[in-house]
Formats: sequence, C-alpha cells, structure tokens
Amino acid sequence: MRADVLAAAAGVLMAEGVGGFTVEKVIAASGVSSATIYKHWPSRGALALDGYLHAVGDAIAVRDSGDIRADLEHMVVAFVRMVSRRPEGAVFAQLIGAAQTDQELAAQFDHHYFGPRRREAFALLEATKERGQIDADTDIGVLVDLIWGACYIRLLLPHLTDQLTPAFAREVVAQALSGVLVDTATP
Amino acid sequence: MRADVLAAAAGVLMAEGVGGFTVEKVIAASGVSSATIYKHWPSRGALALDGYLHAVGDAIAVRDSGDIRADLEHMVVAFVRMVSRRPEGAVFAQLIGAAQTDQELAAQFDHHYFGPRRREAFALLEATKERGQIDADTDIGVLVDLIWGACYIRLLLPHLTDQLTPAFAREVVAQALSGVLVDTATP
Repeated sequence: MRADVLAAAAGVLMAEGVGGFTVEKVIAASGVSSATIYKHWPSRGALALDGYLHAVGDAIAVRDSGDIRADLEHMVVAFVRMVSRRPEGAVFAQLIGAAQTDQELAAQFDHHYFGPRRREAFALLEATKERGQIDADTDIGVLVDLIWGACYIRLLLPHLTDQLTPAFAREVVAQALSGVLVDTATP
Repeated sequence: MRADVLAAAAGVLMAEGVGGFTVEKVIAASGVSSATIYKHWPSRGALALDGYLHAVGDAIAVRDSGDIRADLEHMVVAFVRMVSRRPEGAVFAQLIGAAQTDQELAAQFDHHYFGPRRREAFALLEATKERGQIDADTDIGVLVDLIWGACYIRLLLPHLTDQLTPAFAREVVAQALSGVLVDTATP
C-alpha cells in the first residue's frame, strides 16, 4: 500500500508541481482509500514530500577522504545535480516554499531531509577541524550555512536558478574554505 | 487610491499571512473596486508583495565607508533585524515561498526587491575589489551569495530562523571575508 501511494504521489507531484498536488488526485491514482491515506500522512505537504523523497532518493553523498575540499565538492555538486533535474529541482524549491505556510510539512522536511543532511555536513567538518585541517576558531555552523546557503539562494530566489551549476558549487566550496583551511603542506 | 489599497493589503497580509491573503479581503478592507485592483496588480502575489514593501519599507542600508567589513555588517544586520520582526519576517519568508509557484510574484520580487539589492551589494564589493582591498581573483557573485545565502537559509529552512541573529550575521561577514580580504596594514 505504502509503495503504491508514494509512487502515485510522486507521479502527481512531478506532473503538476506542488500547486497542482492534491490528496484527491493521489487517492484516484493509487486506488487507496482516503481514510488510509489521511491516517498515514498528516497533511497534503507531508504526503507530497514523502512522494518526492521516494522518487528522487535521499542518499547523502557523504565521504571523509581527508581532502575536505574534494569531499565538500562531492556533496555540493551532487546536490546541485539533483536540483538541476527537471522537474525535480523546481518541485524541491516548491516544497520548501510550501513549508513556509505548512508547519507539518516543515517538521517532516526537517526530520527526514534537512536535519540528517545538516548533521552529516557538521560531522564531516568537525572531524576535519579536530584533525587540525580547519582553523580551530572556525564556526562550523557558519561554514555549513555559507556553503549550502549560497546554493539554496540560487535555487530559491527568482532568476538565479540557471546560475546554480557544478562550476558555481566548486567555486563556493573554494571561496568558503579559503579563509579557514590550514595549509598542511607548509608547516 | 493606491495608498489605500496598499495599506489594506499590508493589513490583511500581516494579520493573516500569505496563506490567508486574498484579493477579496483587500477589496473589502479598502473599499476599492475589484476591477481597479486587478487592473493595477496582475496577481494576488504581486499585490501582497507591494503591500509588504509599502509597510516594511524598501530602503537599502548601503554605504561605502572604505571599511568593507563594517559596511557589509551594516547591510546584513539591517536585513536580519528586518526579518526578525514579527510578523514581518515570517511574512517575508512566506512571500518567497509563494514565489516558487507564482511566476508573476517572482518577477515582481526580482524587479522591486532582489534585483536592486543584489546590484547594490555587487557595486559595493566591486568598488572594494577595484581599490585592491579584496583579492583580485575573488568571484564577487559567489561572495554575495555566500553572505546573503547563509542568512536566507536560516530564514527559509525549518527550525533555523531563531538562529538568524545579528551575532550570526557578523560572523558570516567575518568568515566570508576571511579568505579574500587584503590586509592593507601589512604591505
């Protein structure tokens, strides 16, 4: 049942966007009763998000090779490639938009998506800092927000989405690290 | 007429948020005819944004004193204080959210708000770079997005808004500039 509902939700979402997404359409497409759907998904937004993550996947491209610049580029470029896909990228931005007025969606987003990703990025950068590869004074929370914020602003503010490219992501990582990276080659 | 409509739009928006904002409520509150309102504002979102900017003001806290760190702090802290006000901050985030599915609102936002602000920030940083106070290799577009992106991500992603403080804004500016600022005190 769950897989049928999520596949139907993803289908409606990708075809019609968040604006055209309704629980009624998911009921019609899946054949599952509205009572069952409302029992498992507390809001239209939560159902849409679950459908989205089911379709797009929620694997985190995290690794710790010891080369923080390469590892961050790997994570951020993977994110940029995900949100550059059509219609997935626009739908993702629409879901963040809808979360501004749907507290249930916001909570689900935080629990299933932003929270885990943020913790992974923090853990990677904290480990790098503990190895002495990032300046000891660096605020890791600020560093995470500089890097991902630069990408999210290009995704969410009008007319910047086309400028959210892998090349931009690499430059963001380079510039965000430029003041905090300890050059271990020159002791 | 225009001032009456905008005051009514701002009143509805601040009281009910973007979710409860309708053109009908603005018609009722202003006493202006629906034909007149639809003639001047092409969409619900465009009317809401105009009401918001009318109420909150759209002055840009830009200055070029020669001390780029202080000038950026001035701009970014002014932005953080604006979006920390209630209900103004949440309404601003909701308007960005609504712009993800309202192309007319997105275009108006770009024209009346993001475009001018972005150009001011670019001009300030380009002038600083031309004076040799910022490293010649710096991508000014990336620098602008690092700084404002870090603030917007805390505004827009769930459960980060409380962490969008003036102290955070100052740390963002310091960390974003740390790798690109030319130390003119040590030639």
